[in-house]
Amino acid sequence: MYSIDDSKALHTDLYQINMVETYWADGIHEKKSVFDLYFRKLPFQNGYAVFAGLEKIVRYLEQFQFSKNDIEYLRNLGYQDDFLAYLETIRFTGTVHAMREGEIAFENEPIIRIEATLAEAQLIETGLLNIVNYQTLIATKASRIRHLSNDDELLEFGTRRAHEFDAALWGARAAYIGGFNATSNVRAGKLFNIPVAGTHAHAMIQAYQDEYTAFKAYAKRHRDCVFLVDTYDTLRSGIPNAIRVAKELGDDIRFIGIRLDSGDLAYLSKQARAMLDEAGFHEAKIVVSNDLDEETILNLKSQGAKIDVWGVGTKLITAYDNPALGAVYKLVAIEGQEGTLEDTIKISANPEKVTTPGLKKVYRIINMANQKSEGDYIALDHEHPENETKLKMFHPTHTFVSKFVTNFYAKDLHVKVFDNGVLTYELPSTQDIQEYAKASLNDLWDEYKRTLNAESYPVDLSEACWNHKMSKISEEQEKVAAMQVSL
Amino acid sequence: MYSIDDSKALHTDLYQINMVETYWADGIHEKKSVFDLYFRKLPFQNGYAVFAGLEKIVRYLEQFQFSKNDIEYLRNLGYQDDFLAYLETIRFTGTVHAMREGEIAFENEPIIRIEATLAEAQLIETGLLNIVNYQTLIATKASRIRHLSNDDELLEFGTRRAHEFDAALWGARAAYIGGFNATSNVRAGKLFNIPVAGTHAHAMIQAYQDEYTAFKAYAKRHRDCVFLVDTYDTLRSGIPNAIRVAKELGDDIRFIGIRLDSGDLAYLSKQARAMLDEAGFHEAKIVVSNDLDEETILNLKSQGAKIDVWGVGTKLITAYDNPALGAVYKLVAIEGQEGTLEDTIKISANPEKVTTPGLKKVYRIINMANQKSEGDYIALDHEHPENETKLKMFHPTHTFVSKFVTNFYAKDLHVKVFDNGVLTYELPSTQDIQEYAKASLNDLWDEYKRTLNAESYPVDLSEACWNHKMSKISEEQEKVAAMQVSL
Repeated sequence: MYSIDDSKALHTDLYQINMVETYWADGIHEKKSVFDLYFRKLPFQNGYAVFAGLEKIVRYLEQFQFSKNDIEYLRNLGYQDDFLAYLETIRFTGTVHAMREGEIAFENEPIIRIEATLAEAQLIETGLLNIVNYQTLIATKASRIRHLSNDDELLEFGTRRAHEFDAALWGARAAYIGGFNATSNVRAGKLFNIPVAGTHAHAMIQAYQDEYTAFKAYAKRHRDCVFLVDTYDTLRSGIPNAIRVAKELGDDIRFIGIRLDSGDLAYLSKQARAMLDEAGFHEAKIVVSNDLDEETILNLKSQGAKIDVWGVGTKLITAYDNPALGAVYKLVAIEGQEGTLEDTIKISANPEKVTTPGLKKVYRIINMANQKSEGDYIALDHEHPENETKLKMFHPTHTFVSKFVTNFYAKDLHVKVFDNGVLTYELPSTQDIQEYAKASLNDLWDEYKRTLNAESYPVDLSEACWNHKMSKISEEQEKVAAMQVSL
Repeated sequence: MYSIDDSKALHTDLYQINMVETYWADGIHEKKSVFDLYFRKLPFQNGYAVFAGLEKIVRYLEQFQFSKNDIEYLRNLGYQDDFLAYLETIRFTGTVHAMREGEIAFENEPIIRIEATLAEAQLIETGLLNIVNYQTLIATKASRIRHLSNDDELLEFGTRRAHEFDAALWGARAAYIGGFNATSNVRAGKLFNIPVAGTHAHAMIQAYQDEYTAFKAYAKRHRDCVFLVDTYDTLRSGIPNAIRVAKELGDDIRFIGIRLDSGDLAYLSKQARAMLDEAGFHEAKIVVSNDLDEETILNLKSQGAKIDVWGVGTKLITAYDNPALGAVYKLVAIEGQEGTLEDTIKISANPEKVTTPGLKKVYRIINMANQKSEGDYIALDHEHPENETKLKMFHPTHTFVSKFVTNFYAKDLHVKVFDNGVLTYELPSTQDIQEYAKASLNDLWDEYKRTLNAESYPVDLSEACWNHKMSKISEEQEKVAAMQVSL
């Protein structure tokens, strides 16, 4: 076990190291290269995604460095000393533009743009994708749940079902970014300064063998009380015991409410509401949990369930119905013979997989008349849509679908995070990120926020960007044809 | 950010800390308690599960301790000094029996049995479940894929789609335990001493702008070559270029084979085989990847695909079709008034959720005549089925389904891992764990190994265990009835 100086630089696919060795042996490892990180398909058939992951990426890039025993391990795998001596010197010295965490993101737009040496850019690919794919997935799932829950309180309860520790931790943070109010994971509360929530489990009732004694014992030490009432019989024992203890202790405690963790939550919550009201506890809340997700919440609400607080675990933290986001990381430009960047393209038999060449920026085009977004606009780096008064936006596949926009504000969705390896961006607090996500979502018309059959949001290329892509496709097709002839 | 002394003790649900505070205030926090960790339902509708997670659990328990700033954080949340002074002293001092990693496990049998103070046992619940649920899920998924792949080489390629770093890392290890040959995750290779695999990506071809140059550059530095052939046109450019380079370089390289990452893998692999054979490369292997899982592998094989090596990513590392295992952790005994253990039960309207009270052990009953298992046998701690000559095994729900077994070997599935806080178990190497899983699977008849509609494997209670459970159910039902009357 090499646990002592375990660095995250080895948290990559072996082929990255082999490619870097190839570049190094050929002397092209320090060529400047540009990679775009983006996804091609929204998860959950949702109308948008909520980007999360930047904070962890910043830490990862800041600390990027192979440790002594990483190098030792690679030597044992057969890598040679000359190459290892180079690997050992690698730090991240590139420039990164990225969306802010909490940004609303769509298909095919660069969420992160990396400009770095070919070697650095390649080595960090796997780590970056690992981070963005998971955190964005969970922030998006949480946002769907928030959308259907209106202003109800939402608690993230998924740690025990998460995919190992990091998913529980960063998933709790992503859920908060997506609009949850609190998490049960105490470590997430500490590390990200987000609210934590939770009272007691069935095991406590079992330890005392009866509810009345257990509730009283809990209340002795905790002023804020939520009693779990479904250990034996919710309506005939749990709720009556909770009410009894609340009445007996009066102002000695704050009787926040009760929690239901099993049974028919619509029926039980209505009965519970009636019992609590009859006992005079009109303010007491009803908290529920038990394999919830946005669909069950919608269904329970449509049945008139009297639920105030939703605890959501498994289905959120594992993104149960769509447990992977497929973000990719593609080379869009590389230093040519004369030291200038040459834009590259990857063509494919599958049109969605054709990349968009060149250094690009993404803008959200906000209509000043109504403060709603007309769509996103991907432009080449040298373009300045913010200085234009009239913008032509057209569909990147069905190009005849077009519109002209005037009276708009072109919001640059990228911030510069690293400048030649130096962190230039101040990471916001998790609260600020949550606020930012909420405000950004507000720029969207409701039709993009439906959790089922959402309208497809326009992500358009500028004319210059589109023309550039088309000419690169032609060039590439000619090259491939020539290659086939020559064999 | 409190990143300096981030301990994993806070990696728990807040309610655990609240319950411990309640116990502590009442003076029952050091009562000896017994918890069983088990799952109620096999994932993927598989016929068995492969247990993984013990190594991480051992490290977690050995290091269990609240750090200075954990305590500081809890103080800021409002916990009081007297309780925090106690929390600070907590270490894991309990006794743990667990299945070996790689053990074949079934529904409702204690995978881990924890005997510890009520406080300790409660605090570690969330972490233990978080570890076992994920690692067991992935080892099981990997075992399904191994089963349908016969002796083909299987590579774990999922890091970029895993749920954050820990899932990528421990998932790679779990995949190896379940029967994979190697992982692309270099850090997993280092930390767990498992083989790593990978050559190059499309980006390398793009960096050189043509396949021939790229393959040659790669071959200059790497003796073992697998060329990725689908960047432009697999059959007209990729494979011919790979063959050309292999012929030109001859014995300077070992031409291991080619990799296909898109297109119709059945058709392309057959064409590729023919082209490689015609060129005299009969030994060259065909490696494929692209959203594979056990079903696609089965389908490709049934179509006669000529594939030697399978790279499996997303569907394995996220357990895509069943991304959560629902293991639970239930109190089965607690110290009573006189210092002796009293067995506890939790009843439920849902019969599957009724717990099995008391300290128990699990045995696999191997028929000596054929070396195959007759089923698993859960007995009370004081029973010794290994000393009996004739065993009655009966279905725990349909009790009339029973059989007598003679000429058997009762294999105790538990090892003692901790004895009053002291580690007493030597952790095996990952290789040994993989071997153990393979050998254990060999004890099962084939009908339990089908990936679809597997037979249900018998997990029976001993008569004493069953009778004990029934009498506890009656006791509990009477208690609940009395409770309802008294309200």
